[in-house]
Amino acid sequence: MDDDVPLILTLDESGSNTSTPNEQLDREDLPNENGGSYDLVNDVSSPATGDYHSQQRSARHNWEMNYQEAAIYLQEGENNDKFLTHPKNAKALAAYLFVHNHLFYLMELTTALLLLLLSLCEAPAVPILRLGIYIHATLELFALVVVVFELSMKMRWMGFYTYIRHKRTMVKTCVLLVQFVEAIVVLVRQTSHVRITRALRCIFLVDCRYCGAVRRNLRQIFQSLPPFIDILLLLLFFMVIFAILGFYLFSSNHSDPYFSTLENSLVNLFVLLTTSNFPDVMMPSYSQNPWSCVFFIVYLSIELYFIMNLLLAVVFDTFSDIEKRKFKSLLLHKRTAIQHAYRLLVSKQRPSGISFKQFEGLMRFYTPRMCARERYLTFKALNQSNTALVSLQDFYNFYEVVGLKWKAKRNREHWFDDLPRTAFLIFKGINILVKSRAFQYAMYTVVAVNGIWILIQTFMLQGGNFFPRDVPWSYIVFLTIYGVELLLKTTGLGPIEYLSSGWNLLFKLKKRYRNVLDTMFELFPRMASLGLTLLIFYYSFAIVGMEFFSGVVYPNCCNTSTVADAYRWVNHTVGNKTVVEEGYYYLNNFDNILNSFVTLFELTVVNDWYIIMEGVTSQTSHWSRLYFMIFYIVTMVVMTIIVAFILEAFVFRMNYTRKNQGSEEDNGIVLEKEISKEEMAGVIELFRRNCAASETAPLQKVVAQMDKYEQTSMLFLGRRSRTKSDLSMKMYEEEIQEWYEEHSRKEEYQWQEDVFPSGNPMPSSGLRQRSQTVI
Amino acid sequence: MDDDVPLILTLDESGSNTSTPNEQLDREDLPNENGGSYDLVNDVSSPATGDYHSQQRSARHNWEMNYQEAAIYLQEGENNDKFLTHPKNAKALAAYLFVHNHLFYLMELTTALLLLLLSLCEAPAVPILRLGIYIHATLELFALVVVVFELSMKMRWMGFYTYIRHKRTMVKTCVLLVQFVEAIVVLVRQTSHVRITRALRCIFLVDCRYCGAVRRNLRQIFQSLPPFIDILLLLLFFMVIFAILGFYLFSSNHSDPYFSTLENSLVNLFVLLTTSNFPDVMMPSYSQNPWSCVFFIVYLSIELYFIMNLLLAVVFDTFSDIEKRKFKSLLLHKRTAIQHAYRLLVSKQRPSGISFKQFEGLMRFYTPRMCARERYLTFKALNQSNTALVSLQDFYNFYEVVGLKWKAKRNREHWFDDLPRTAFLIFKGINILVKSRAFQYAMYTVVAVNGIWILIQTFMLQGGNFFPRDVPWSYIVFLTIYGVELLLKTTGLGPIEYLSSGWNLLFKLKKRYRNVLDTMFELFPRMASLGLTLLIFYYSFAIVGMEFFSGVVYPNCCNTSTVADAYRWVNHTVGNKTVVEEGYYYLNNFDNILNSFVTLFELTVVNDWYIIMEGVTSQTSHWSRLYFMIFYIVTMVVMTIIVAFILEAFVFRMNYTRKNQGSEEDNGIVLEKEISKEEMAGVIELFRRNCAASETAPLQKVVAQMDKYEQTSMLFLGRRSRTKSDLSMKMYEEEIQEWYEEHSRKEEYQWQEDVFPSGNPMPSSGLRQRSQTVI
Repeated sequence: MDDDVPLILTLDESGSNTSTPNEQLDREDLPNENGGSYDLVNDVSSPATGDYHSQQRSARHNWEMNYQEAAIYLQEGENNDKFLTHPKNAKALAAYLFVHNHLFYLMELTTALLLLLLSLCEAPAVPILRLGIYIHATLELFALVVVVFELSMKMRWMGFYTYIRHKRTMVKTCVLLVQFVEAIVVLVRQTSHVRITRALRCIFLVDCRYCGAVRRNLRQIFQSLPPFIDILLLLLFFMVIFAILGFYLFSSNHSDPYFSTLENSLVNLFVLLTTSNFPDVMMPSYSQNPWSCVFFIVYLSIELYFIMNLLLAVVFDTFSDIEKRKFKSLLLHKRTAIQHAYRLLVSKQRPSGISFKQFEGLMRFYTPRMCARERYLTFKALNQSNTALVSLQDFYNFYEVVGLKWKAKRNREHWFDDLPRTAFLIFKGINILVKSRAFQYAMYTVVAVNGIWILIQTFMLQGGNFFPRDVPWSYIVFLTIYGVELLLKTTGLGPIEYLSSGWNLLFKLKKRYRNVLDTMFELFPRMASLGLTLLIFYYSFAIVGMEFFSGVVYPNCCNTSTVADAYRWVNHTVGNKTVVEEGYYYLNNFDNILNSFVTLFELTVVNDWYIIMEGVTSQTSHWSRLYFMIFYIVTMVVMTIIVAFILEAFVFRMNYTRKNQGSEEDNGIVLEKEISKEEMAGVIELFRRNCAASETAPLQKVVAQMDKYEQTSMLFLGRRSRTKSDLSMKMYEEEIQEWYEEHSRKEEYQWQEDVFPSGNPMPSSGLRQRSQTVI
Repeated sequence: MDDDVPLILTLDESGSNTSTPNEQLDREDLPNENGGSYDLVNDVSSPATGDYHSQQRSARHNWEMNYQEAAIYLQEGENNDKFLTHPKNAKALAAYLFVHNHLFYLMELTTALLLLLLSLCEAPAVPILRLGIYIHATLELFALVVVVFELSMKMRWMGFYTYIRHKRTMVKTCVLLVQFVEAIVVLVRQTSHVRITRALRCIFLVDCRYCGAVRRNLRQIFQSLPPFIDILLLLLFFMVIFAILGFYLFSSNHSDPYFSTLENSLVNLFVLLTTSNFPDVMMPSYSQNPWSCVFFIVYLSIELYFIMNLLLAVVFDTFSDIEKRKFKSLLLHKRTAIQHAYRLLVSKQRPSGISFKQFEGLMRFYTPRMCARERYLTFKALNQSNTALVSLQDFYNFYEVVGLKWKAKRNREHWFDDLPRTAFLIFKGINILVKSRAFQYAMYTVVAVNGIWILIQTFMLQGGNFFPRDVPWSYIVFLTIYGVELLLKTTGLGPIEYLSSGWNLLFKLKKRYRNVLDTMFELFPRMASLGLTLLIFYYSFAIVGMEFFSGVVYPNCCNTSTVADAYRWVNHTVGNKTVVEEGYYYLNNFDNILNSFVTLFELTVVNDWYIIMEGVTSQTSHWSRLYFMIFYIVTMVVMTIIVAFILEAFVFRMNYTRKNQGSEEDNGIVLEKEISKEEMAGVIELFRRNCAASETAPLQKVVAQMDKYEQTSMLFLGRRSRTKSDLSMKMYEEEIQEWYEEHSRKEEYQWQEDVFPSGNPMPSSGLRQRSQTVI
């Protein structure tokens, strides 16, 4: 088995392949057995001089290199990294391994967060976190230096040319430069200037490895922009027309401040679009002439109820389309990655598939934590033809199979099956009781009664003492009931089954809730990333807001504006009692970053946002309105996308459910594999021969277990939860075949181009050329 | 040709078919030539006694009956009327024809509108429309008597049993009864009591023939309700939990009126769901502890941004599903109708299809206004095999073809082709100029400049004199340019082409706008019917609101409530000037039906709706809140459906466009048919023989035209705009075939059941049994 030789070899350090294989072999060093695998390239001794052992050793090293590169390809496929940034030589590989590492990722994230959190301490700072200029500028410089280090490592991995062609990284570099200069200026002048560029700090977070989802969201937002802008223009067009009309109609009414000038007319119709000043904006003209309401009703019907919904429709439509195209490109990218990896794993002796030995080698690099038993099961799961080799067709399922978690299938039904007869009967009784409908409904009733009880108790309790000293008896009763239920269920079902069936029990009531909750759980990661995307926009706007509006709003600040009441703070004495009249809106300010975030959230909710806008405007200039209007439009985009996203996910799931109505209830993806004793022995032998004796322990445990239960074979279940990708696979089943064919036609063309670039019939790897090694 | 005998006969007056055909024939009266066709049934003289002419006459009458019933079937298919209400005998037919008549429909509509409009005059009436109780009660009684007449006619048509099993009509009858009693009570007591039942008057409008779209909308709303309610419960569940939590957290803060009791807490969180009291509801607790904003942010994120969107998703999903099922059932219903009609049109001699004579007879009843030429073209369009007969398979396209408008295809390209050479060259020049890109862009520029000009002019004009005495020169310039453009285009393109290409020219700029506008035009009828549905809900709520809240809100009415400012009206003197401080909200009242409508629109827009609610509540009881909350939920349902509807229509259209990307631009459905001179002569001969000489005039005109241009044949184009049904046909192309097969399997089964109900192998019509006539 050790005599296998890879069909193609990897990581040609010289980068040249004009030399013939033999020439190249002559140039190689002697095998270096102790060196790390990635500083070795083709450590093959010359066929004429090498003895059998060194040949074997060098073959093993070749294999190690191939395993590692195949693992890298598969990772690139999984993460949707372009193959363009695939490490091209040993130096790049070292940098690649350094950069693709959770420690490095964490460092990236920490620096980015540090930079973002600095805004808490920089003026205008949150009072208790205020730091001296000297301190926070130094911290900033330190963080920036770390970013420089990270970028230089990345450049080392990608190479200079790929690096400068990589847009995101270039933008990051420019921002870094600006930030550097500014930080130094601050340090020198010992005072902060108007640093709006701090708003760009988000890019450090966006560029983090862990924020891939945020990047995808941003990309999707930008892709949805063109149709969005089209409809927005339509919206603004009607707004301008109505503003002119409104100005002519209502500006003669001197008690109507909303349409006194064209600018007011425009601003108020913009606010009306958000309904935020309705019906106030209508009232002065309505009190003069009741029919003036027609103007507002028509405006709102067209703008709010028609065009705004159209906006959602357009975004939703674009969104679904993009989702599908994204899925397609990701699928094909993964497929290409698998092809690349496969070519590196096939041996010269057996070109029709991958043997377990090769697969095991790959997995050592791809998922080092996976134990030997699981690796073997994964291999078996891939291997649908049940031969010794995994063909390319089988290997295409790699990403679907590798995520499965394997467990031995239990033969016993209950955890107490092995107990003595009496105990068994007792537990069996509890089990039946716990599973009965009567018990379930009894518990539902208790929960309902408890809920109503709490409601009534709270209703009776008007002010008074909330937390009486002695615990009320009702609490004790209900807690006892819940305790007993918990005890019964854990004993009757066993702790593991109890925990895993908790959700099912709870939501057996309503199928629709289950669908909703499933969708919710499926959505949760994406929702979180969308939330983070929104926060990034918030951050930028908060910085800009703080630079321009910090400190402009305070109690009784806006007495000249139309919204003076909201900012009032009067402290007057009536009789002998002090009465405080508060408008509270002075709290919605940009005085520090936390306050800014709350203010921006209020602007996002939209209601009464014009009060905040008018307050700030009355204290600054009327150009401030631009800030608020732009913020409104930006949040509108993000919010529309969030809505479209929820819609898309839910509708997709419902369509899926409808399509698979006949099939049984699904609990994720489940696969069953049987392993016989002889097979196990073979695998153990293989590991022993490969000097990986430490890994055989779990395998031997399996054999021991088989012996104990006197079985000749053992069943294993592989499980994982169903992802959106699985659903898409099933939904687009027919189209996928077309995509594959189209793709393979293109690939074939490229392959031909690649393999015989100059009519040279020497096989070589896909994206760059490698020399072939003959031993 | 006249010797054709229908395969089956219609309208068996006796209703019995136990007698053998000959027995039945013996019982029949002699043919009655002058009677209307529908009081004749089987006017077939006994074969033994009848001479040839009376036989021929009776055959013709049989055919007339069949034509009429086939036309009724086709109308039922088109209007989605159940075949259960198909007229069963001559008396029912008379009633049917009386009821299915635009005059009758108009009467229905007028009475319904009269009843609805009475609310303008009944107390609390719109001041200038106030009528005495005596007058409006008499009017109401009159309208109700008309409704009774209408219902009795319907009962005559449907028969008693079908009538009482028809739910909608039964509800209408009950409402009618209640209204009658109430109207009499009012007339007797000479004073109006609390007449909430007036809210039910809408049912008279909903039941109108012309309001079929509204009925469909209502049905769709009710069908969407179950999933909607599920999610609503989830929403309310979270609301209650947060209300309890909010009460415990914030009620200790005595400056916070929003959470002082559990009821307040619930109401304010309900209002917060609509964002209407945000951020005010947060401010008191926020000013005490900044971190309390977390409570509100979490609440809004879950309720507003997640569950509310889920609500939309669920409704949208249900909506799309219902749309598809509706399309399916409508399609199959039409198909069945066509089958019924076909069976009545096939003659005994030629059972494999419908000849033109029969088709022409059908069309005389189905679309009496259609001229002979169009009837023949429709027949030709149906007849795909180009034989003399239209088979059932061809006849299935009936509804698609019958809507086509036919026009002779013009051979000349421009309207001026026939003019003398010089004139032709001039017009040709204008034509080329007008069609040139330069001209188009020049005109766009003029429009843009004009727009900016108006904008600037309005901007400069701050108050001042709006309408100066002398027209400004800019107006004259622009109007002249537009005039010249109009002149050039009408002369260059011809008036017809100019008008029809206007839209195209205008929106050539942006393909997306075209899609949007197309969708808009397609949506318009449905949007109008949805608007009407909303108005019907408004009407009911307005009546209830007027009964309970009319007159409760007036200036300075609500000084004890938290919204007192909004209802303030203070008239005080500062120096020597009178200053009026107005809150204006007292204008949002239920004092008459017009005011109520405006108030309800304001509640629909949602912003600041709690001010109206609190104002009314402070003057009545806190149960009034129920009215406002229920109204909010109802409008939320309707609005969500409107959004879902716009979404569905737009996404559907975009999918369609995407699917048909390759195909040429579509201008609706177009069909081309050629008619030769000989064919025309044959058709004219046919009409002449049938004594319908008056109808041959348009045909002879065609022949004359052919002679003039020395053509042996003439091309006709049939055109109609594309409907949603056409799009659906294409979208569900594959599924439709499945539906048909499934349907025909069921049909076949029913047919067998129907034709041989007791093993009697006598063929009979589909839904009820008819006797076969043998001559």
